[in-house]
Amino acid sequence: MGATDAAEQLAEVGRRFDARDWVLGTSGNFSLVLERDPLRLAMTRSGMFKGALTADGIVEIDADGRPIRPEAGKPSAEALLHLVIARTRGAAAVLHTHSIWSTVLSDRHVTAGGLAIADYEMLKGLEGVATHEHREWVPILENDQDMARLAGRVRHVLAEHEACHGFLLRRHGLYTWGETLPQAVRHVEILEFLLEAVGRIEN
Amino acid sequence: MGATDAAEQLAEVGRRFDARDWVLGTSGNFSLVLERDPLRLAMTRSGMFKGALTADGIVEIDADGRPIRPEAGKPSAEALLHLVIARTRGAAAVLHTHSIWSTVLSDRHVTAGGLAIADYEMLKGLEGVATHEHREWVPILENDQDMARLAGRVRHVLAEHEACHGFLLRRHGLYTWGETLPQAVRHVEILEFLLEAVGRIEN
Amino acid sequence: MGATDAAEQLAEVGRRFDARDWVLGTSGNFSLVLERDPLRLAMTRSGMFKGALTADGIVEIDADGRPIRPEAGKPSAEALLHLVIARTRGAAAVLHTHSIWSTVLSDRHVTAGGLAIADYEMLKGLEGVATHEHREWVPILENDQDMARLAGRVRHVLAEHEACHGFLLRRHGLYTWGETLPQAVRHVEILEFLLEAVGRIEN
Amino acid sequence: MGATDAAEQLAEVGRRFDARDWVLGTSGNFSLVLERDPLRLAMTRSGMFKGALTADGIVEIDADGRPIRPEAGKPSAEALLHLVIARTRGAAAVLHTHSIWSTVLSDRHVTAGGLAIADYEMLKGLEGVATHEHREWVPILENDQDMARLAGRVRHVLAEHEACHGFLLRRHGLYTWGETLPQAVRHVEILEFLLEAVGRIEN
Repeated sequence: MGATDAAEQLAEVGRRFDARDWVLGTSGNFSLVLERDPLRLAMTRSGMFKGALTADGIVEIDADGRPIRPEAGKPSAEALLHLVIARTRGAAAVLHTHSIWSTVLSDRHVTAGGLAIADYEMLKGLEGVATHEHREWVPILENDQDMARLAGRVRHVLAEHEACHGFLLRRHGLYTWGETLPQAVRHVEILEFLLEAVGRIEN
Repeated sequence: MGATDAAEQLAEVGRRFDARDWVLGTSGNFSLVLERDPLRLAMTRSGMFKGALTADGIVEIDADGRPIRPEAGKPSAEALLHLVIARTRGAAAVLHTHSIWSTVLSDRHVTAGGLAIADYEMLKGLEGVATHEHREWVPILENDQDMARLAGRVRHVLAEHEACHGFLLRRHGLYTWGETLPQAVRHVEILEFLLEAVGRIEN
Repeated sequence: MGATDAAEQLAEVGRRFDARDWVLGTSGNFSLVLERDPLRLAMTRSGMFKGALTADGIVEIDADGRPIRPEAGKPSAEALLHLVIARTRGAAAVLHTHSIWSTVLSDRHVTAGGLAIADYEMLKGLEGVATHEHREWVPILENDQDMARLAGRVRHVLAEHEACHGFLLRRHGLYTWGETLPQAVRHVEILEFLLEAVGRIEN
Repeated sequence: MGATDAAEQLAEVGRRFDARDWVLGTSGNFSLVLERDPLRLAMTRSGMFKGALTADGIVEIDADGRPIRPEAGKPSAEALLHLVIARTRGAAAVLHTHSIWSTVLSDRHVTAGGLAIADYEMLKGLEGVATHEHREWVPILENDQDMARLAGRVRHVLAEHEACHGFLLRRHGLYTWGETLPQAVRHVEILEFLLEAVGRIEN
């Protein structure tokens, strides 16, 4: 995929998520793998409103998270997390949203280290899940501004929970991914739905 | 009705329900009766985003739930439920939505086998109901991945509750139907509204 | 104003309220005064989706609530209520919405005969209110399918509460009005906002 | 910036906030600094629906809050608050929204004089905040119809809380600002998100 295609596809995702209030205030960030070896990502720039993304709002980064054309702007601070996920999960798309319910539940369940979501039909929307009789563990990590350290912890959590389809950063929102962009979008919608349903059932 | 018309009409319903977050993550499925004898349905394909349906997202199935042109894709796994409803209710349209509130209430009330909704003006939007002084019983069935078995239980519940306008699958959402597509859409909106109202009054 | 203008203006209101889920499932009804003496109203027909109103969805009624051209369709069953309001309040526009929060609060507060909303800045959006230090009494009437009887009770309540800007029917929603259509729209938005705010503060 | 540009930019903000129900019923008001010395603002007129702003909905005011062309209409009653903020914060844009959650929280926390929001990633969206380990104090002032007196209290609160990015008026909503209009929009979205998240966590 070329960088222009990537920008158009991410812009469409941005409009969709913005309409649902999942990327308010320039929050959230998205990436697409442009090349696997060496790893190269198209990624949303820092500080862009996701509902109004243009080609200008996307930068390319290399396998170390450095912008390939630094004059094009700074990638999102969380580029290292995207790279870890793209590498360890073989994901082609990584999406981070920042909704009310992921924020609320990431806080409520942080001491348990995560949140189990079981027996919902919606779970079947997660790749490889064939029945609602599934128990999805959504790990929750403490938030951290040291991105190298946080990337290390994400790598560790992903290794420990090989079957998980996403994770939460405390009071920071959801990370999920997919083998394709539509699959990653589906994962966002499934997990955001489930977090809200669980949140309202708990109330 | 032809298959192209069916696709256009279901696409419009998909956009409407998607905007209300009732079909997130490719959830939900819709069908229209194309022919009554032998029974032939236009049905949404498995795994399509309902807010962006095209003719390509609709397949035709026969009275046994088999795709008439298998190369056109797999119908939704729940085709058998649509066929039971089209047959036993004489419905021309069957709609399944997957909202937060239907999920929450289907869970809360499952042990009672259903949920009574009474004395709301909105009940008059259900076909044949002429006053708010009506008690609508919304049966709740346990969810099941064995579709033949679930279809049998749906047939049983519909026979037992002849007056019901819809039912819930536990943690799976709402099924309703109509003699026309607009009537089925109205039933979705009425029942989703009532489930949210009841849910908030209970809280 | 002519009937065509009325249809266009009410269609715009319908789209706006539909987007906010205040007229789901063909609920709600709207009217505009076309002529004052003798009283003649443009009114939404029974059973129309308010988000997709066309000229065809509007009928003209006379001072007794009878359609002026019966072949054009049946006016909303609640025409008599609109006529009472147009007459006793001198309103040029009457709007009835059917939201979740008006339904919830009309139920919670029915035994008190109404609901006081006081000390909100939003109250200043109600015509003639100049300060947030205002106590708005929103009467709540029991719902009734006998429209002549209900119209009589509405007349009585409006006489008793001369300063009120709207009222609720139990589990049926909000009625409000204005000297102009934009004023009536403003009253809907103000009252719906206040009902939700009060509902969430009570929770 | 010219007045026409200002109108177009504020109209876009109005549509965005209207879609989120933050400016219902003509509530809210927006301003942009046109000239710094002497201070001159483009400001929304009183009583305009913010989702449908046109050039006609914007007036210019001088440093005392008087309309420069009185025949063009009355500025929002809260012009004096905008002037205080533009002056003491050096803001180029001032935005006032009127959401459900700012109303609810401004009421709940008024006796404490404000609300602390700490340890949310979203806080990084506030200008100058570099970590989620930040404690934002959102002052809450009693509402007042005496605008000169209220403007004085706002000046006092802004002096006392030099680091704050916004404040609430009790049961009246949020005021925030920015060095640019997009920054002010970002602040609205960040603060509205945080108020809702905090509100739901408290529940």
